[in-house]
Amino acid sequence: MKILVISSALKDKQKALIEAAALKTGSEVYFFRSENEITAEMQDAEIIYGFGVNYARTNKNLKWLCVPSAGVDYLMKPGSFANEECLLTNSAGAYGVTIAEHIIAVALMMMRNITDYYAGSLNRKWSLPKPQKSLKDCKITILGTGDIGTNFARRAKAFEPKSITGICRSGKCDDIAFDRVMKVDELDKILPETELLVMSLPATKETENILSKERIALLPEGAYIVNVGRGSAIDEEALSDALDGGRLAGAALDVFRTEPLPENSRLWTTKNLLITPHVAGNLTLEHTLNRNVEMFCEDLVNFISGKELKHLVDKKNGY
Amino acid sequence: MKILVISSALKDKQKALIEAAALKTGSEVYFFRSENEITAEMQDAEIIYGFGVNYARTNKNLKWLCVPSAGVDYLMKPGSFANEECLLTNSAGAYGVTIAEHIIAVALMMMRNITDYYAGSLNRKWSLPKPQKSLKDCKITILGTGDIGTNFARRAKAFEPKSITGICRSGKCDDIAFDRVMKVDELDKILPETELLVMSLPATKETENILSKERIALLPEGAYIVNVGRGSAIDEEALSDALDGGRLAGAALDVFRTEPLPENSRLWTTKNLLITPHVAGNLTLEHTLNRNVEMFCEDLVNFISGKELKHLVDKKNGY
Repeated sequence: MKILVISSALKDKQKALIEAAALKTGSEVYFFRSENEITAEMQDAEIIYGFGVNYARTNKNLKWLCVPSAGVDYLMKPGSFANEECLLTNSAGAYGVTIAEHIIAVALMMMRNITDYYAGSLNRKWSLPKPQKSLKDCKITILGTGDIGTNFARRAKAFEPKSITGICRSGKCDDIAFDRVMKVDELDKILPETELLVMSLPATKETENILSKERIALLPEGAYIVNVGRGSAIDEEALSDALDGGRLAGAALDVFRTEPLPENSRLWTTKNLLITPHVAGNLTLEHTLNRNVEMFCEDLVNFISGKELKHLVDKKNGY
Repeated sequence: MKILVISSALKDKQKALIEAAALKTGSEVYFFRSENEITAEMQDAEIIYGFGVNYARTNKNLKWLCVPSAGVDYLMKPGSFANEECLLTNSAGAYGVTIAEHIIAVALMMMRNITDYYAGSLNRKWSLPKPQKSLKDCKITILGTGDIGTNFARRAKAFEPKSITGICRSGKCDDIAFDRVMKVDELDKILPETELLVMSLPATKETENILSKERIALLPEGAYIVNVGRGSAIDEEALSDALDGGRLAGAALDVFRTEPLPENSRLWTTKNLLITPHVAGNLTLEHTLNRNVEMFCEDLVNFISGKELKHLVDKKNGY
C-alpha cells in the first residue's frame, strides 16, 4: 500500500510515528506539505492522511481518506469521492482538550469582562471594576456531548457549576461530568434555564440553524453563548440583534457561516461579541497534533488488517 | 454593642444577613456607604465591618475592625490603630473562587494567544493561527497555598497538568489538589522546572520582591507568570526586561507596586504583558459578597460570646 501524507504541521517526531506505523504494516509512506506537490507517479496511492480533497474527487484508486479535521462538511457534497466506496475517517477525538480550554477561556473572559479591561489596557486605561458572573453556580448546557463537549464538561465541573446538562441526538452519554443528558428534541425545554450555552456540533442538515431566532429568544436575559462547532448552527443576524439589544450578556464565536469573516460583517461590531478566527482547535498545540497522528496510525493498522476503522465517518449522517 | 457597617457594595440581601446576626447577638447595626458619612454620635461604636481606616486610627473605642479585603498591608503601619488592643480580621477566604477563575482565564488567554486574536478583532482582523500552549501537561507552581492558591489548584487539576506544586512558609497544605507542597526556601529549586508560576501572596516583609531579578532568571525560557497577590512581590523592571527580551512567554498582572498603574509606566507597553486593573477579586460577584458577609457574621457571634475570632490577622506576620 502507498500512503500519501499531506501536512505542513507535522514535525520529525510525528513523521517518525507515521513511518513506524507504515513499516509495521508493510506500507510505503510519502510526505507532502500540500496537495499541489503530489507528483504523477503517486496517482496509484490508496491511502491519504491529510486534506487530500482534490485527489479524492479525481482519483478512483483512493480507498481511504483520513482528514486531520474533526468536521467533514466540506466532503459531503455529491462527487466528493471519485471512488464512492472510499472510506472516510476524521480526527474528532484529537481536539477535545484544546477546544475545551478555549471554551473555558472565552466563557470566563466574557463573564468577568476581561475583554473590556484588556481593550482598555491597550490605551493605558485603568478601568473601573465591572460586574462579574461566575462559572460557580452557573447553569450550563452543552449542545453536543462528543469529545469536545465531554472534555469541556470535565473541566467545567471543577468550577462548581449548579448544573451541567448535555444535549445530543441519542440523549445518551455516560461521562460522569454531565449531571444529565437529554435528547435534542428537549432543547426548547432546557434553553429557558440555560445561563451558559456551549455549542459543539458538526455541520449537518439537522444542526443547520439549530440556534434559530426563536430559540435565541428562549434563552433567559443575561445568558452567554459559546460556539466552537460550525457557524451554520446559529442564526447570526438574530444573535447580533439579541446582543446589540442587550438581552444576551455575551457570545464568543470561533466559527462563522462565512470564513474568514468578511470585513463588512455586522458581527465585528456587535456588542459583547468575542470573535476568534477559527483557532479553538488548530494543530499548533503539540498534544493535538500527537493525538491526531496517533489516531491515524491506529486506524492504519486496522485498515491493513481488514478491521473496521475506529474513526469512520458515516457519510449519511455527515459526522 | 454598636456596629458600623461601611460599604457601598451591600444589597438588601446582605444587609438583612447582618441585621439578623446583630439581632441574635443583641447588637445595634448602622449602615454607611463611606467612612465620611459617620456622624459624631457614632464615635462610641466598638465594631466596624468595612474600610474603617480613619476611624481605627483616631478612635480608641474601637475593639474590632473587620475589613472586606484579603490583604491588610495598608493597616500594618505603626499608628494604624488608636487602640492598640483592637482586633483585626480580614476577608481572606471570600476571594478564592473568583480569583481562581481569574487566574485560569488569564493563563489560558496568554497560553492560547487569545489576547492577540481579540486585539486583532477590534480592527476587523481575521488573524492567522498562532502557537498554542496548554494547561494539559503543564508544570504549575503556586506561590501561596491559601484560599486563592487552593481554589486555583482544584480547578487547574481538571486540566490534567503534569504537576501542581504549592509553595508556602510552612511547607504544609493538605488539599489533595496539590501534588506536593514545599517550603518557601525551596523556591529556587522549583523555579527552573516551572512553566506557569502563579503568585498569590500577601504583602509582607518576607514577600517584598520575592520574585527578584535573580529568581526571574531562574524560570525556564517560555515560562508564564500570573500575579494576583500584591505588586510588591515582583521586581517589575526585571519582569519587563525578561518579557521584552522574549525569555518569558507572558505575564498577567492584576496588582502593581503603584495602583492605579501610572500612565507613563513601562508596563503598559511591555511585550506579552496582560494588565488587569486589580479586579481579580472585587466584590461585584455575588458569591464573593455573600461569603464576605457570612464570614463577618460568623465572627460577630464569636466576638460577642468571647470566643476567638476565626479570621484574625496576626499583626506581626501581616496576614
